[in-house]
Amino acid sequence: MSSEPAEAELVASEGASASERRARAWLSRAVEPGEARIHDYVQEVGAVAAAAALGSGRAPEPVQALAGARYDEDRVTADLAAAASVGARIVVPGDQQWPAEALHAMTVATAMGVEGIAPPLALWVRGAGDLAALTRRAVAIVGARAATSYGNEQAAQLGFGVAERGWTVVSGGAFGIDAAAHRGALSAGAPTVAVLAGGIDRSYPAAHAALFERIAKDGLLVSEWPPGCAPYRHRFLIRNRLIAALSAGCVVVEASARSGARHTAGRARQLGRPVMAVPGPVTSAMSVGTHALLRDTETRLVTGVDHVIEEIGMLGEDLAPLARGSETVRDSLSATQARTLDALPSRRPVLPEQVARAAGLSVLEVLSALPALEARALVECTDGAWRLTRQR
Amino acid sequence: MSSEPAEAELVASEGASASERRARAWLSRAVEPGEARIHDYVQEVGAVAAAAALGSGRAPEPVQALAGARYDEDRVTADLAAAASVGARIVVPGDQQWPAEALHAMTVATAMGVEGIAPPLALWVRGAGDLAALTRRAVAIVGARAATSYGNEQAAQLGFGVAERGWTVVSGGAFGIDAAAHRGALSAGAPTVAVLAGGIDRSYPAAHAALFERIAKDGLLVSEWPPGCAPYRHRFLIRNRLIAALSAGCVVVEASARSGARHTAGRARQLGRPVMAVPGPVTSAMSVGTHALLRDTETRLVTGVDHVIEEIGMLGEDLAPLARGSETVRDSLSATQARTLDALPSRRPVLPEQVARAAGLSVLEVLSALPALEARALVECTDGAWRLTRQR
Repeated sequence: MSSEPAEAELVASEGASASERRARAWLSRAVEPGEARIHDYVQEVGAVAAAAALGSGRAPEPVQALAGARYDEDRVTADLAAAASVGARIVVPGDQQWPAEALHAMTVATAMGVEGIAPPLALWVRGAGDLAALTRRAVAIVGARAATSYGNEQAAQLGFGVAERGWTVVSGGAFGIDAAAHRGALSAGAPTVAVLAGGIDRSYPAAHAALFERIAKDGLLVSEWPPGCAPYRHRFLIRNRLIAALSAGCVVVEASARSGARHTAGRARQLGRPVMAVPGPVTSAMSVGTHALLRDTETRLVTGVDHVIEEIGMLGEDLAPLARGSETVRDSLSATQARTLDALPSRRPVLPEQVARAAGLSVLEVLSALPALEARALVECTDGAWRLTRQR
Repeated sequence: MSSEPAEAELVASEGASASERRARAWLSRAVEPGEARIHDYVQEVGAVAAAAALGSGRAPEPVQALAGARYDEDRVTADLAAAASVGARIVVPGDQQWPAEALHAMTVATAMGVEGIAPPLALWVRGAGDLAALTRRAVAIVGARAATSYGNEQAAQLGFGVAERGWTVVSGGAFGIDAAAHRGALSAGAPTVAVLAGGIDRSYPAAHAALFERIAKDGLLVSEWPPGCAPYRHRFLIRNRLIAALSAGCVVVEASARSGARHTAGRARQLGRPVMAVPGPVTSAMSVGTHALLRDTETRLVTGVDHVIEEIGMLGEDLAPLARGSETVRDSLSATQARTLDALPSRRPVLPEQVARAAGLSVLEVLSALPALEARALVECTDGAWRLTRQR
C-alpha cells in the first residue's frame, strides 16, 4: 500500500487521520463488506494494521481469504482521485459525517450473531449532504423495480410527504418504487439519499444519470464500494442492510413474491427497525410481496404519510417528551420491551445473550427490543454490553 | 295470546312444544331482539310465562318496557300462516335445527357484559336448508353496498372458494359485497345463508327478489323478525351480531370508513371469532374501512380462499386431528388462550370473571379465548361456568 497523500484525501479530511482514511479506502476495494470477520479484525488491530497485513498476505487465514486475489492491488490514490474528480469523498469512522448512531444497530445485530450485517468499513459519498445529519431522521422507502403506476404514485406521495415533514428519504436509486420515492422527496425540495451497489461515479441504471445528479445536488449518493466498481448482483443484497440501517423504519410500497424489497424489510427487522407496507389490489402481482409481509403481524399497514410518521416517530425524536415521566415511558413499551428492561442490570453491563436468558426471551427478541429502549434513554450500551442508564 | 294451533306450526314442529313455539313467535314480534334483559327474563321464567306476562302488561317493569305499545297485540296465528304461505317456518330452542352451538358465544358474551348481543329468542327461516347443519362450518363474508367491481369480484371468488370447500357463506343479502358473496357460493352449487333485518317474506332490497328465491332453494333466509316486518335501520345493527355468531369467522371485503361491515367485524371479535379483511388500493374509499381494520393487529389480511380457510380452520374441524395430542394442542394456543387454560379448574366450574382474575387477564380476553379452547375440547361450559373437560 503506497503512502503518498493524494490531494483528494486532504480536502476530505474532517476527523480521521489520513492514514486511517487511506487504509479504509484500500479495504473498501479489497474486501466485500458486511462480513463480521473483517469487521472484527479491523476493530481488533485497527484499519491501518489490518490493511497492511492483508496487503502483504499475512492476515489470519479466514480474514485473508476474504480479500482473495485482490490483496496485492493498491488503487487507493487512483480511487481517491477518481472520487475527487466527481466531487465525491470517503467518509470513515471518526469523521464528523460518519453516521455512527444509525450504524450502531449493525454492531449489535452482528454481536447477536446475525450474519452478513456488519457495519461498513468506509462509505464513499457524493453530494452536498451531510451523511450523519441526513440520516438522523430518515425513512427507507423501497419496492419493486417493475412497479405499477399505482405503486409509483404511492411511493412518490410518501416520499413527498415524509420529506415535507423533515424526514430524509433513503432508497436504492433503482427503477420503479425507489426512483419514485427519491423524486417525491426532491419535489418537496428536500435532500434524499440513494444507497448504491456500485461506485458513486457510475450511474446504474444508466437512465438515472440525471436523477443521480439531482440527488447529489443537496443530498447524497452513498456506496460501500470505491469509484468504478460494478453493481454486481450480490452487492445489492449486501447493500440492502445499509438502506435499512440508515433509516428509522422501512416502508415497502410494492413487492413481488420474490423481491429484493422484502430482503431489505428483513434486514430492517433484524436491526430492530419497524417494517411498514402499503397494501394494494390482491389481483396485482406487485402487491403479493407486500401482502405477504402484512400477514406477518410485525409489519404495520400504512396507507399514507401520517401512518408512516406515527410508526417511525415512536423510535425517533417525535415522542421524545414521553421519555421524561418514567411511568409513561413504561406504558408505551411492548411486553417484550418491558421484559427486556426488567432483565437489565443497573451496574455491570451484560451481553444481550445474558439479558435474553434473564428475561426468558429469545436473543432476537432482546435484540429488537434494545434499540427501542435505547431510543427512550432507558438503557445504554458500551462495547456491545447493556445496562440501565444511570440517570434513571 | 290466543292458543289455537295453526297449521303451519304443526308442520314445523320438530322438537319444541307448540306452546313454546307460539310463545316465542309472539315474543319475536313484541320485543326487539338482542337485549340481555328479555333474554334473561325468558331464561328465568320460560318463554310461555314470559309471553303471558308481557301480553298482559304484568312483566317486571324494565322488561315490560321493551315491549312498549306492542304488548297487547297478538298476531301469532297470522304470522305463522304468513310464514307457511311462503314456505317458511319458525325455529326455536329445542328444535333440531336450532343452531345452539353457534349461538353459544352470544350467551357467553352477554354474561361478560357485552351489550346488545343476547341470543335470538326465535328465528324465522325460509328455505330448504337445515340451519344447524349449514352453520356448523360457516364463514361470514360481508362488506360495502357501494362496492367497487374489484370488491365484488373478490367477494364472489371468496364465496365460490369457501363454498367449494364445504363451508357455508353467511351474509346479509344486501347490494354489493353481500350479494356477490352469496352469488359466489350459489355458483359453486352450494347453499348459502342470508340473515335479513326484516321479514323473510319481504325482499329487501326489492331487486334481490330473484336472488332470495335462489338462496331459499337450497339454503336459507333467516330473520329474527316475523313475516311482514320492515327492515328498519336499527335492525341492521341488531342483525349484524347474528351474522357474526352464525359463522366461525368474518371476512370484510370492502368497507368505507363508516361501514356496517366494520360493525359486524366488531361483533365477530366480541364473540371470539377471527376477523379477516381483504386489502385494496389505498386510493379506494371502499378500502379505507378494511385498511383501518388491518392496522389493528387482531385482523388478519387475506388475499384469497386459502388464507380464509387457514384462519377459520384453526377454530373449526379442519385441524381437529391436532386435538389428540395434548402437547400439540397446547403449542397451537395463543399466549392468552394458554393462560386462560391454565387458570381453569378441573372440578367446580367457575365464571369467566373468576378465570380472568386467576389468569391476570381482562374479562374480554378470557371471553375470546374460551370458545377457541372449547372448540379444541379442552374446556367445557355449563350454565355459563367453565372448567377443564373431564377426559383430559
